[in-house]
Amino acid sequence: MAMKSSSARKERQVTLADIPRVGPGTPAGEWLRKYWLALSTAEELYDIPKAVKVLGEELVLFRDLHGRLGLVGLHCPHRGTSLEYGDVEENGIRCPYHGWLFDVSGQCLEQPAEPKDSVFCQKVKHLSYPVQELGGLIFAYLGPQPAPPLPRYSCLVDRGGMRQIEPVRTNDYNWFNFFENSADPCHICILHRHTGYGEQSWGDQFFSYTDMPDFDFVETDYGFKVVMTKPGPSAGTEFVDTMSLALPCIIQVGDTEFVHAKVDAVKLMTEGSHCDHVLFLTPNDDEHFTIFTVNYYTGSDPNFFEKLKALRATEVPKEAVKEYDRRKYMPFKGNVRQEDIMSQSTQGLLGEREERLATSDKGVIMFRRIIRDAIAAAQKGQRPKGVLPREKSAAVVFFDSFTGVRKAAPR
Amino acid sequence: MAMKSSSARKERQVTLADIPRVGPGTPAGEWLRKYWLALSTAEELYDIPKAVKVLGEELVLFRDLHGRLGLVGLHCPHRGTSLEYGDVEENGIRCPYHGWLFDVSGQCLEQPAEPKDSVFCQKVKHLSYPVQELGGLIFAYLGPQPAPPLPRYSCLVDRGGMRQIEPVRTNDYNWFNFFENSADPCHICILHRHTGYGEQSWGDQFFSYTDMPDFDFVETDYGFKVVMTKPGPSAGTEFVDTMSLALPCIIQVGDTEFVHAKVDAVKLMTEGSHCDHVLFLTPNDDEHFTIFTVNYYTGSDPNFFEKLKALRATEVPKEAVKEYDRRKYMPFKGNVRQEDIMSQSTQGLLGEREERLATSDKGVIMFRRIIRDAIAAAQKGQRPKGVLPREKSAAVVFFDSFTGVRKAAPR
Amino acid sequence: MAMKSSSARKERQVTLADIPRVGPGTPAGEWLRKYWLALSTAEELYDIPKAVKVLGEELVLFRDLHGRLGLVGLHCPHRGTSLEYGDVEENGIRCPYHGWLFDVSGQCLEQPAEPKDSVFCQKVKHLSYPVQELGGLIFAYLGPQPAPPLPRYSCLVDRGGMRQIEPVRTNDYNWFNFFENSADPCHICILHRHTGYGEQSWGDQFFSYTDMPDFDFVETDYGFKVVMTKPGPSAGTEFVDTMSLALPCIIQVGDTEFVHAKVDAVKLMTEGSHCDHVLFLTPNDDEHFTIFTVNYYTGSDPNFFEKLKALRATEVPKEAVKEYDRRKYMPFKGNVRQEDIMSQSTQGLLGEREERLATSDKGVIMFRRIIRDAIAAAQKGQRPKGVLPREKSAAVVFFDSFTGVRKAAPR
Repeated sequence: MAMKSSSARKERQVTLADIPRVGPGTPAGEWLRKYWLALSTAEELYDIPKAVKVLGEELVLFRDLHGRLGLVGLHCPHRGTSLEYGDVEENGIRCPYHGWLFDVSGQCLEQPAEPKDSVFCQKVKHLSYPVQELGGLIFAYLGPQPAPPLPRYSCLVDRGGMRQIEPVRTNDYNWFNFFENSADPCHICILHRHTGYGEQSWGDQFFSYTDMPDFDFVETDYGFKVVMTKPGPSAGTEFVDTMSLALPCIIQVGDTEFVHAKVDAVKLMTEGSHCDHVLFLTPNDDEHFTIFTVNYYTGSDPNFFEKLKALRATEVPKEAVKEYDRRKYMPFKGNVRQEDIMSQSTQGLLGEREERLATSDKGVIMFRRIIRDAIAAAQKGQRPKGVLPREKSAAVVFFDSFTGVRKAAPR
Repeated sequence: MAMKSSSARKERQVTLADIPRVGPGTPAGEWLRKYWLALSTAEELYDIPKAVKVLGEELVLFRDLHGRLGLVGLHCPHRGTSLEYGDVEENGIRCPYHGWLFDVSGQCLEQPAEPKDSVFCQKVKHLSYPVQELGGLIFAYLGPQPAPPLPRYSCLVDRGGMRQIEPVRTNDYNWFNFFENSADPCHICILHRHTGYGEQSWGDQFFSYTDMPDFDFVETDYGFKVVMTKPGPSAGTEFVDTMSLALPCIIQVGDTEFVHAKVDAVKLMTEGSHCDHVLFLTPNDDEHFTIFTVNYYTGSDPNFFEKLKALRATEVPKEAVKEYDRRKYMPFKGNVRQEDIMSQSTQGLLGEREERLATSDKGVIMFRRIIRDAIAAAQKGQRPKGVLPREKSAAVVFFDSFTGVRKAAPR
Repeated sequence: MAMKSSSARKERQVTLADIPRVGPGTPAGEWLRKYWLALSTAEELYDIPKAVKVLGEELVLFRDLHGRLGLVGLHCPHRGTSLEYGDVEENGIRCPYHGWLFDVSGQCLEQPAEPKDSVFCQKVKHLSYPVQELGGLIFAYLGPQPAPPLPRYSCLVDRGGMRQIEPVRTNDYNWFNFFENSADPCHICILHRHTGYGEQSWGDQFFSYTDMPDFDFVETDYGFKVVMTKPGPSAGTEFVDTMSLALPCIIQVGDTEFVHAKVDAVKLMTEGSHCDHVLFLTPNDDEHFTIFTVNYYTGSDPNFFEKLKALRATEVPKEAVKEYDRRKYMPFKGNVRQEDIMSQSTQGLLGEREERLATSDKGVIMFRRIIRDAIAAAQKGQRPKGVLPREKSAAVVFFDSFTGVRKAAPR
């Protein structure tokens, strides 16, 4: 009876308030533990231990001198000292307090103060999670075994283009405010109108405040897709821009060249975009998340990333801040990332804040339903959307973003 | 039965511990919501939204381009983004995230991402409170409708004198420690003896540490009055100084010229004081309150405020702070406001701290009783002291402070 | 029945989780209240009140102008203002708010605002604890009367040597992590191997990482002793180093000259150490403790303390901190005190953290048992270890540390 009651509790209806909470034992926390999550860029993992917080768990990431990646509990199982201050050695990480050495699997290998014939260290296995590197990002899997395959995300698997990984960013608000913002394309025309989206050279000013595109929302096998269209440059054509949201927490934006590069619109339009801009989110806890940003370029310009960087450097907030203005997030207008931080960090937690949703929240409503279904699937022991079956482990995972001109769909 | 039980709970005996707590649903919070409270000076409300916290509620104050004052909930009712970052427009305030526009009544006027024929915005009414400006201060009423009249406080209603509003001060302790401090006149002779009260030129050194005045306490229609007397300059006369405490949270000090200006005592004594020094307190939450200070002068010196300012500038703490002295509130002696902050901020919360009250706390005891009666009246749905009946809305509200020499009262 | 139940609760089994919690009413808090605890050095108690937190209680320490020491509750019993801002006078401390004067026993002597014939002050007795000065340290007793004698600790009672009291240190983690660290001698060979323990000139490199001494642990009348031995310089001798842990919270290290001074090993070895290094710990609350450090030297070098200070000044962390290393406690290697802070402050609270104890934790296990027994004894109303019986109040209390060469014990 107790079992049944416990099971009933566990499989209760998933609510909006469940989505933002990621700690161990929470519905969304258990769901997120079904996926590989990005932890660090390979570049930012140095020759010292790196403390990381993932889904509310305190861990330490390191690479032993053989190059093997390890992710183990932050506190030494012996007497609790932080392994963040440990020595990285040939075969693992050594606690500074009593010298216990752990390999990347968490197995204790040495205990220098124990008698020489002691076998106690063989019995000590520290908390450890599998880690894999792919295309410059380091991923971990915090869920129950067996781990699913780490998807071979197209932007991380070399296919002849150029890849750039941006410096990691961490924000101090709930990860889902950021994620669902991408299921809400009309905010681009409104919040970001100051960034020049409406004034750029792309076609008919696609993201105009006064003439917004049509928005359509599609559930996909990997998650969710936003499709934005406007009449094209010639009869029977339409401009298309898509954005993909892949479970559990990946965003692929397809229109980098149009939005940011602002170069030769006609040529770009006929070719489509050559640059995927992909954001891997990792919730640290309910109040912090980290963004790992990958740009993958397959066009012909060998200096594309330099140009992109130079263009972004010009996107600073344009506002003159008045002398009496002491507001925390000022200035923000004129920089997409600061506009997002201002609007998302002040929202509060989904399920706690009051809301009045409207027609234009259609994408958000649909996306939340997809997330709740995935959480419910995880609760039932089913494979949630975005978790690869083992037989597909070799496939490259594409999110079918498209940006360009196509033959108009019938309306 | 549930109703009766709920009602019984609501009308339980008001305790001392109820007084300092101001949040929604608390006895004192509901009582304070029966009054207009000061929010800002008109001067410090600029052309940008101003976030304010009042009685634990997060709100945003603004003035639309027609000059209308609005006070609405801080978070947009749509998806929660802070309206502190909104654009102030001709007809209201516009949320930065999706552009919803609200007028000063909270009515939603525009939703730019909704279909052009949508009437949804007509159904969205954001939290909003009435606001009024009077004599350079902006007041709001956070209670149930109908709102009582905003009292025409004499210091704010022009009657031929000069008015000065000081820069706003916010302190980080409970508001009631500050308020009841004024019902306790003997602290002036003790805590403030370092400020020169006992050494000034006024008459016989009215607030002497070793020869304190007589204190009397009177309940009034507006609240409470402290009457301090000493034998006067000639037989059959007495010096009188009064201080008024008006509900819910106003203090009027009548002796500004004597205490601070320290000019020609004989002349002043025969004429009485010409300057009201009035403090409007607003509890932000249980740990913070804001002080709005109004000086109203009706004397003949056209440079009175300049002189007062110059004199106050000299009232800095006179203590030499020793090199090993790391105490937080040092130095304080020699400046009334810093002396008050030191002594009140370290008291802790009324009802939580232990106390041993003495004869000299007679005023405090009586004043707390008056406040508890007012809270109880509010609980019973009666009109608490200090709330004006509608038929008196046109009257100027005087607090009958008097400072000067009068015929001695019989003893 | 209620009594019995309450008593049963009070005398429940003492657990590891009880040890670190020191507030009033906790098992360890009540146990610690059976002892005199150090509060301040005499040198750092100036002519102003000193706020101190001891076992979770907020107090203020002062010395009246007659030189009498007082320790009273931080908040004035009248209306709660902090006596930290009081005036120290001939006969006590005077509250700044209403001038109540308290003597060192907490007796109220004056209430200047009360009627001249009032006797109310006689009825007001503020919280007060006994205080005593011994050898440059100020101790207080916070427990029930009668207070036991303040032990005449040998390092504080002049017997012809030189005494030095170091500047006081306060750390922000639980006191017991620091205390039990001394019951764990193998950490010296491991954590502190970077400080040069293994490379110094003392005999056969006593604290070698690769050839650790033998450790033995002895329960004593004052608490606990760690005995560390290695084969001596000639047949039939052994090097001995001992460390004493006296209840409730005193550590005596005997090897100062060997470890720190690194001078003429042979001469020192034959003579034994002449310097006691004694640490008196005082828990401020569960997250902070203060260390009072006494060095007592009985050797022949008149410049010993100057040399010791000069040597310590060289013990700075030797690590080159990499440019990308942002870890909080970096650098630490090369300075015993910073190595200790790094390892102990990251452990978390005993009883909350997970642990896997090993053979080398034998001392820690035994020491925790001694502490739990002492707490249990205090619960039962018995005299816990380290509390002196009154008849021994005149005796000098030695902790029998010994460091040097002795005839080898039989093995």
